[in-house]
Amino acid sequence: MLINGSASATISALDRGLHYGDGLFETLAVVAGEPCLWQRHMTRLELGCRRLGIEFPDANRLLEEVYLEIGERSHGVVKIILTRGSGGRGYRPAQKHQAPTRLVNFSAWPAYPEEWSITGVQVRFCTTRLGCNPLLAGLKTLNRLEQVMARAEWDDLEIAEGLLLDSEGRVVEGTMSNLFLLHGERLTTSELSRCGVAGVMRELVLEQADQLGLIPVIENLLLHHLQTADALFLTNSLIGIWPVRKLGEWLYDAHRVPPRLVAAVKQSGFQFG
Amino acid sequence: MLINGSASATISALDRGLHYGDGLFETLAVVAGEPCLWQRHMTRLELGCRRLGIEFPDANRLLEEVYLEIGERSHGVVKIILTRGSGGRGYRPAQKHQAPTRLVNFSAWPAYPEEWSITGVQVRFCTTRLGCNPLLAGLKTLNRLEQVMARAEWDDLEIAEGLLLDSEGRVVEGTMSNLFLLHGERLTTSELSRCGVAGVMRELVLEQADQLGLIPVIENLLLHHLQTADALFLTNSLIGIWPVRKLGEWLYDAHRVPPRLVAAVKQSGFQFG
Repeated sequence: MLINGSASATISALDRGLHYGDGLFETLAVVAGEPCLWQRHMTRLELGCRRLGIEFPDANRLLEEVYLEIGERSHGVVKIILTRGSGGRGYRPAQKHQAPTRLVNFSAWPAYPEEWSITGVQVRFCTTRLGCNPLLAGLKTLNRLEQVMARAEWDDLEIAEGLLLDSEGRVVEGTMSNLFLLHGERLTTSELSRCGVAGVMRELVLEQADQLGLIPVIENLLLHHLQTADALFLTNSLIGIWPVRKLGEWLYDAHRVPPRLVAAVKQSGFQFG
Repeated sequence: MLINGSASATISALDRGLHYGDGLFETLAVVAGEPCLWQRHMTRLELGCRRLGIEFPDANRLLEEVYLEIGERSHGVVKIILTRGSGGRGYRPAQKHQAPTRLVNFSAWPAYPEEWSITGVQVRFCTTRLGCNPLLAGLKTLNRLEQVMARAEWDDLEIAEGLLLDSEGRVVEGTMSNLFLLHGERLTTSELSRCGVAGVMRELVLEQADQLGLIPVIENLLLHHLQTADALFLTNSLIGIWPVRKLGEWLYDAHRVPPRLVAAVKQSGFQFG
């Protein structure tokens, strides 16, 4: 693990990332030794920095650190954490341009069953609801207690993901993934101005869908939209696309997820880019 | 600083406190070498642990660590951070009963002007709104980005605190304090079932008010309640009571805060207890 470019297993116990969750993170697939969708991840990180008022680091230096951390390894996951750094008086940041803390950590690819990408996954609804917070909506901040609480709701290893609703009953996303819904040629994903994380893979899927002649739509999703969908699938930077075969008691045909979209995402979603 | 009882300035970079804000904290006044309102802080910490599913540590051992960290120092602040510890697969905690991480850190008393307790403070409204999240409401979790963003809104050192509204326009609390409003004999503070932190000093003030013949009330506060109040004041474990003399353009008489309440809080709020 690298902290600010140096090998270390620890960070300052005064870091604002620990004290307040005052920071952001990115989780990248590593394929053939390359951090996938690098530019998209950096674009989101930069947006997050701008919205939180955290100094965005030199992306080239960060990329060097990512390669250093990957080393000779070919396949896995790199997590980048960027915090506002240490210090300040209480919640108040120390200064406008304080040096952020950079953490880069390689880990093994998660042991998801391979067939989940093909035959689809089983999904549940979480009782945990996402709080509404337009200020932080869309960002991948270090304030992730809602996701921790939601993921702690089930132990059944057969259930791959849980869907989170907001307090008004809109279906927002999974604990670690975004949700898409196919209805004819319309491919819809949730609007994320109140809560949720705007995934890098979600963005890629929306673009690919458009190029493949589907109609990408961003809007509020309600339960009845899910119930009447032709197909559902989940996305994130590691899983790419997981078709949903079962959501609670509702069944879906995993093969209704357009194979040309799956192929396009598989191809463009797992390279440096 | 003590991490799990040992002197250390760093914590594991894999700690869930850093990665997800998966933990809680308490900030205690230290007066005459004693951590004030110890029992109340432990009660809140235990409640937080129960709600988040974090193992509550041995309170006696924690108290020993607090005394060890205070050492020969008489006056200051002790912050206790308790996280769910390291590990787990993504958001999912490693196991039900994993050992939490304990951090105990002494720091100097914040340099607030002394007269603020007597002549009152100047307060502003923040534009940052608190998100609604009943699951975490009332708890002092490590997910504090809203407070960081709110506190970053102003630099003017004359402004002691900023008040936060929720998305429905209810006035909830300050960035680091709870709000009280006096109207005749009624002493009202905000209801905190959707958001906010239920302060230890808030609880003490409610109890003291009752004993002193005031009528403690917990309900939703709207702007017009504040505008028409006889007096406003802020509370937390370090400041005790700060009368408000100015809120935006509204002026208040700091001396309308009942002196018998101020005296009672000063006496009972800054001892071990």
